Formats: sequence, C-alpha cells, structure tokens
Amino acid sequence: MTARIFPTAQDAENAFYEALERCDLEGMMAVWAEDEDILCVHPGGPRLTGQDQVRESWAGIFSGGPRARLQVSQQVAISGMMLAVHSVFENFSIEGAQGDARPAPIVATNVYLRTAAGWRMIVHHASPAPAQPGPAPRQAPPKFLH
Amino acid sequence: MTARIFPTAQDAENAFYEALERCDLEGMMAVWAEDEDILCVHPGGPRLTGQDQVRESWAGIFSGGPRARLQVSQQVAISGMMLAVHSVFENFSIEGAQGDARPAPIVATNVYLRTAAGWRMIVHHASPAPAQPGPAPRQAPPKFLH
Repeated sequence: MTARIFPTAQDAENAFYEALERCDLEGMMAVWAEDEDILCVHPGGPRLTGQDQVRESWAGIFSGGPRARLQVSQQVAISGMMLAVHSVFENFSIEGAQGDARPAPIVATNVYLRTAAGWRMIVHHASPAPAQPGPAPRQAPPKFLH
Repeated sequence: MTARIFPTAQDAENAFYEALERCDLEGMMAVWAEDEDILCVHPGGPRLTGQDQVRESWAGIFSGGPRARLQVSQQVAISGMMLAVHSVFENFSIEGAQGDARPAPIVATNVYLRTAAGWRMIVHHASPAPAQPGPAPRQAPPKFLH
C-alpha cells in the first residue's frame, strides 16, 4: 500500500476524521506515525501505545461499520515546526436519531508530528464532554509559532 | 508576584503536579502560559479556555484544601524545540483510605510551550482511565526531536 503524505497537520486531521466517519481502518492507520511512540485514549478507555494496540482498537470500533455522521467543531490549533496540537469537539449523530438522541460531544486533543513521510498523528486523547461545551462556539484561527 | 521561570517542560510539569497536590492556586497559575491560548479539560468537565476560566476552575477544585496524595506515573514525553507533549497517569490516594478506596487513575495529556518566560503549560486534558491502565507499566525515556 502506498503511504499517504500529509503536507500539513490539518491534512492529517482531515484524513483522520474522514477515516473515523467511514470506519476505514487502513485510512485511519495511514494517519498515524509508524516509527514513533504513539498514544491513543478512546473515551473512557485505557491508554493504548504502539501500532498494534492502536490498530486493534480501531478495528474493534469499526467492526460494526459506519453508523454515525461526524461533525468536528471548535478547533483550536497550536502549531510548531515539528509538533502541532489540535483541540476539537467531535459531534456524532446517529442516522435516524432525533435531536435529543445525539450522543454527548467528545473533546479530543490530537498531536501531530512532522516526520520524513509528512505530518502524522502521534497522540489522540478523547473523552466525553458535557452536552453544553462552553459559552460561545469558538473558531480561533490557527496559531503559528514560527 | 515574581514569575517563575521553568527551564524545561519537565520543570513546568513538576511544578504543575506540586501545585495540584498542595492545592496551591498561585503555584498552579504560575505554570500556565499568560499570553497564549490555553485549554484545560478536567475529568468529565467542559473544555475551558483562557486564564479566567482556568483559574476559576482550579480555585473551585482547590477550595477544599489538600486531601489527597498524588503520584504521577508512566510518563511518555515527546519534545520539540517549541512544544512538548507529556502523557501521564495521575494516581490520587485519599488519606486514610485503604487500597480499594483509591479513585481510578486519571490519564492526562499535557502540552507545554517554550515562551519568552520559559516553558509553560498550554493544554491539560485529563480524563478517568480504567483501573487497569494497560499491560506493563511503561517508563519510556524522553524522546527528543532535535
């Protein structure tokens, strides 16, 4: 399989959430760094480390196939030369479900590393957030350190 | 109040957890960046942004005074020139409580930024982890990108 190259951390994040919505395991794993420490915390789950644990966890999550739409919102991005940190809300909506049946949003901290093969994810930490995520929706522009 | 200078991200992290254990609000806020976007997610809580929300949340948490001992374990550190990301487990133990009465561990992703005033925290994302945090305890050496 040809490795995908992500020129920016945002490209990697877009691919991550596309793969998550589609339950696309290969697309998902193409986003993660291959030769680095990687860490993944699913909502309420243990801290997973390494390609094997992370792949196995997504395989389990994706085993039922795509059932929910996903909207990512309120991104805050902090970008360095080698590392980028994005904080987002993941808003899932189950098809057929009405307003109140939507699961609570998930708050996620995503860390990307600039590798020889482009930007890759190295940390995904997701946890349930209260239904009211805060005062006003926030769409801060990306912040660049360099 | 004289600002504290943290020469490394690890120094900032040490001060963060000292302040957390002691319920020291000024010590806590001295760790956070002042002129940057900051984000804080307490276990099960909303995403807080900015000095005011973050200070207010710690003031509430600290209002009862120190009651628990804190041990930080299984750190994985990823360090760049400007950003550093640490993943740790926070293990609290209530004084007087026996083994089984210990709260579940907290998994935390901490992000530090090298500012003109030394390393400061910009992101703290904490969430409850299962009581068995994984296979073997891991003490990876810090990983430096430069």
